[in-house]
Amino acid sequence: MKKIFFKRIGIVGVGLIGSSFALAVKERKCADEIWGYSLSGNSAKKAFELGIIDKYINDLALLAKECDLILVSTPVLTIPEILKELSLNIKPETIVTDGGSVKNFVRECHYLFSDKNFIGAHPIAGTEKSGPEAGFSSLFDGSSCVITPLVDSDSEKLRTVTRLWETLGMNVVFMTPEEHDEVMANVSHMPHAVAFSLVFSVKDKYFKDTKFTAFAGGGFKDFTRIAKSDVTMWTDIFLSNSKMVLASIKDFESSLSRLKRGLEDYNRTEIEAFISSARNVLLGTEKK
Amino acid sequence: MKKIFFKRIGIVGVGLIGSSFALAVKERKCADEIWGYSLSGNSAKKAFELGIIDKYINDLALLAKECDLILVSTPVLTIPEILKELSLNIKPETIVTDGGSVKNFVRECHYLFSDKNFIGAHPIAGTEKSGPEAGFSSLFDGSSCVITPLVDSDSEKLRTVTRLWETLGMNVVFMTPEEHDEVMANVSHMPHAVAFSLVFSVKDKYFKDTKFTAFAGGGFKDFTRIAKSDVTMWTDIFLSNSKMVLASIKDFESSLSRLKRGLEDYNRTEIEAFISSARNVLLGTEKK
Repeated sequence: MKKIFFKRIGIVGVGLIGSSFALAVKERKCADEIWGYSLSGNSAKKAFELGIIDKYINDLALLAKECDLILVSTPVLTIPEILKELSLNIKPETIVTDGGSVKNFVRECHYLFSDKNFIGAHPIAGTEKSGPEAGFSSLFDGSSCVITPLVDSDSEKLRTVTRLWETLGMNVVFMTPEEHDEVMANVSHMPHAVAFSLVFSVKDKYFKDTKFTAFAGGGFKDFTRIAKSDVTMWTDIFLSNSKMVLASIKDFESSLSRLKRGLEDYNRTEIEAFISSARNVLLGTEKK
Repeated sequence: MKKIFFKRIGIVGVGLIGSSFALAVKERKCADEIWGYSLSGNSAKKAFELGIIDKYINDLALLAKECDLILVSTPVLTIPEILKELSLNIKPETIVTDGGSVKNFVRECHYLFSDKNFIGAHPIAGTEKSGPEAGFSSLFDGSSCVITPLVDSDSEKLRTVTRLWETLGMNVVFMTPEEHDEVMANVSHMPHAVAFSLVFSVKDKYFKDTKFTAFAGGGFKDFTRIAKSDVTMWTDIFLSNSKMVLASIKDFESSLSRLKRGLEDYNRTEIEAFISSARNVLLGTEKK
């Protein structure tokens, strides 16, 4: 397989994802040069100072004109507007991809680009940290990347984007934007909503007592880890996928109500069956 | 400080906690001999075969008569009955402690022992695994142990139990049984109820498709880890602490409803404030 290579890669939004992408691309020698642009200018400047990118610029039109590949890795609600601006100045051969955790804007934004430059992607990788200083080159290694092609996507650009994410160590899976958003609502967005709510619900009781955290055994630390995630990123995810997240929360509430009824009725059989059912699914033993 | 030492320690229920206790006690040479008893006989036999305990017996009265210290580490709803049986044959100087995750039985069971033999304890340690083969000697090291003395507990026996758990590496904290159960409802029992419900709620949608798990990024793996916990152990915890768990679930539901309203209203300010609030509590920056 021919090595993938770009003369100049542009990154819009140089936070955890953008800076990790830059570091991974450099490590694998997939580009001669990396330029960065950020909405406020701060993260791109910081990434430049840290030596993660080669240049930071304040002109999105220039980025569109001068780069062969552009990754948009900003909070998801800002992506459509950035794609619109990029589309005004893009070269026919330039590829645009993104890192957004919600993909319902892909279908609409696809038609902004007369040369089908845009291929939507969601590299499912991250930590609870944010900002360029949190980036590291192996972030994507071994994780899944969902790519959301449309029926009339440019097949060569699609192949290139696929190979790029694979070169960074990702297992690429294809889904429609709608499939992607429903799966993510269930396995990521709703669980984060639950984790934020869980921490929120106990805050007035004990967290002001710093000794309290010492009593938190196994379970709680897992919740607190994901509840430390970036505020703007998650607000954007919840708002842009609100319909599916709300449906997923509703299903979750029904399940919790069932467990509650078991407790209210002191129904040992029901509670055991409930826990076993959840556990067996995880252990892969549940028969259809 | 004089080294803590027992001629013969008895363990009732030789699962993850009981077998780890045996291994830790042996490693620190705190006992000449360890006997085990289990409700079904299976875990004690298995622990003996694995070389974790020195003898397994089927007679609880014999254990009560022959041991200097007894740890009861069975599912929490079975503990009161075991304590009752032990109290009938206990020597005045023998100490009885336990590993129960709920402590509301302590007050009642205390009075079963005319020589105040029983000191309730909850070593807050564990993994999602269970059974004697899951035990390891460093399980307790560096974690907290809540001891729940009553106003008329025997002070020397209390000191001995405290030193024992400290010798195994635990940070001992004293609480009333009621304080303990409320804290645990919030930081452990309710979070587990939420994790079980979360996995339960998505089971019909995707888990039958084995590819699905590949798409679960950060958040979901944390939930699935704790949702693999032992069924009987957690059924007992939920039932025995049902009142406080239900209160804690109710608080959680209110929080989740608030986030839901933010989503339904597409209220960016409200959602950002909600996530920030949870996050800031964790980061310890929230001002009163």
